[in-house]
Amino acid sequence: MKNGFINLNSNIRILASASAVGKKEGEGPLGSLFDHIIADSFCGKASWEQAESCLQQTAFEAAVKKAGLRPGEAGCIFAGDLLANSAGSVYGAGEAGLPFFGVYGACSTAAETIILASALLTGGLAERCACVTSSHFCTAERQFRTPLEYGGQRAPTAQWTSTAAGAFILSARAEKTQNARLPRVVCATAGRIIDKGVTDTSNMGAAMAPAAFDTISRHLVSRGASPSDYDLIATGDLGFIGGEILLGLFAEHGVSLANYTDCGRLIYDRVGQDVHSGGSGCGCSASVLSAYILPKLISGEYRRVLFCPTGAMMSVTTSQQKQSIPGICYAVEIECGE
Amino acid sequence: MKNGFINLNSNIRILASASAVGKKEGEGPLGSLFDHIIADSFCGKASWEQAESCLQQTAFEAAVKKAGLRPGEAGCIFAGDLLANSAGSVYGAGEAGLPFFGVYGACSTAAETIILASALLTGGLAERCACVTSSHFCTAERQFRTPLEYGGQRAPTAQWTSTAAGAFILSARAEKTQNARLPRVVCATAGRIIDKGVTDTSNMGAAMAPAAFDTISRHLVSRGASPSDYDLIATGDLGFIGGEILLGLFAEHGVSLANYTDCGRLIYDRVGQDVHSGGSGCGCSASVLSAYILPKLISGEYRRVLFCPTGAMMSVTTSQQKQSIPGICYAVEIECGE
Repeated sequence: MKNGFINLNSNIRILASASAVGKKEGEGPLGSLFDHIIADSFCGKASWEQAESCLQQTAFEAAVKKAGLRPGEAGCIFAGDLLANSAGSVYGAGEAGLPFFGVYGACSTAAETIILASALLTGGLAERCACVTSSHFCTAERQFRTPLEYGGQRAPTAQWTSTAAGAFILSARAEKTQNARLPRVVCATAGRIIDKGVTDTSNMGAAMAPAAFDTISRHLVSRGASPSDYDLIATGDLGFIGGEILLGLFAEHGVSLANYTDCGRLIYDRVGQDVHSGGSGCGCSASVLSAYILPKLISGEYRRVLFCPTGAMMSVTTSQQKQSIPGICYAVEIECGE
Repeated sequence: MKNGFINLNSNIRILASASAVGKKEGEGPLGSLFDHIIADSFCGKASWEQAESCLQQTAFEAAVKKAGLRPGEAGCIFAGDLLANSAGSVYGAGEAGLPFFGVYGACSTAAETIILASALLTGGLAERCACVTSSHFCTAERQFRTPLEYGGQRAPTAQWTSTAAGAFILSARAEKTQNARLPRVVCATAGRIIDKGVTDTSNMGAAMAPAAFDTISRHLVSRGASPSDYDLIATGDLGFIGGEILLGLFAEHGVSLANYTDCGRLIYDRVGQDVHSGGSGCGCSASVLSAYILPKLISGEYRRVLFCPTGAMMSVTTSQQKQSIPGICYAVEIECGE
């Protein structure tokens, strides 16, 4: 591994994926693309935390079904979320009873799970792995910021944590599938903890953008690629403000980040849905990858995508102790060809 | 992967390891074996959380030094701890600036990091990986139970979260080392989430023991081995009570779990140090593996060990919401021969 670059087995395919989202996400621009829209923020459960777990289970079961598998055939599960001690995953995907790897990369977790699952597949240690990640607006707000009942006014730089989960079934087998075109996970660059001293928990885009710059830069160098070699470079959770900072950092280095977007920009109507700087959360990038990006790879509209979720690695305790917010970003290169 | 069993590359060696512990651990039966004893519970920092990060850094730097490497040569870091959102690791091992994979398996995290690092090495995706885990009595008590200032009386079933960190440098290279005998990570069994309905956060041994039974049973079946084939089967954090439950579960199935111990039993003098059911915490199993178990493998006293840290996967929120405590256990088989 040089500069965090990981060259994967050339035969790792995303056999199927699925998304489950909340009401607001269902009303957004991508609404018609998600597999499941669950209007009840509680998913019929006793708490929002249990609802988040329910989103994970819904996405996982849908992905398994799309892959034509029974849950037990998914091999093992890599899962993560934003909740303290990964509660969304432990009580969510964990309940499938499969071998379970809990992973934490804040909002970057979707990419971290895909990289680690791909590593297991590359090593021949598993034939299939599932990757499941989630976030929930209500669980995240009350954990990281204020109780929802408090009705605090949101800062203009704030992002809206998506109520969403995404699940992916990765396979290194020669699968029998009706879909001849399956996206391949080709290579990846692991994130590093990058801390530029941002302390505002209502401006996570600013905290994460330097990490995105670091990881995407390293990935492009390792690949000898330029941004225009990709049909899409999608960060996960920078939103509008963090995305502008990222473009500015590349511009300072004389690089135009062509074909750039951010999953947090895609998932909501910025003005109409009053989301300020856009979406964020493990489930934001995961559900957008599943519902929006992968279908465009499968249809041939995209051929090569760099998927780069970013994480703001703060906790309630470290925020209260006035520590700055370290960022991290993982880059996953996904192709789909003949 | 069948039943979670993972057969690793036969050439993955633990090049070096190190431990850094607190005052109480330094006064315990293994005190003379730890690399660093830091008597100040704050490690000279402003908070216990920062002290925990300092323990990680101390252990990581010591392990790197023992391996004869510079920190950058450690490849990448897998790290985890008990704090919400992995704060001990983000601000701890994360600060080394290496590619970073955050992992969460509660007290089982040391084994989870070793398994995932070994998977990366087996896949040829890295030549070396560091695994770093920590726990801190003061950060864990105030997060999971009560503020220390409250002075609550501890239940007889309670365990003492160890103030400790352990770091391991894994390598798949042919390393030049003065020590011809390096322990090898041979194979492993991934944990599953097992929830038997225990809700008492002061009796985590009971919550975790069924997971240990599940994982160790699967590992023995996958290996076609019996307990006596191992010189040591060491769970991580069951302590005295959880350990007795585990032995009882095996006895119910007609199996005598020979050569069994628990890291939480080894690290303290149960009576003299007033630790009730024994030690626990990511750092407990990690520091005991580094300071006590690996040296016995290197010296030839042990030839084959099954290292099985266990995790209680609750969070403050799920405990407050009266959810039961799911357990998990990972088993790592370590050998050292000619």
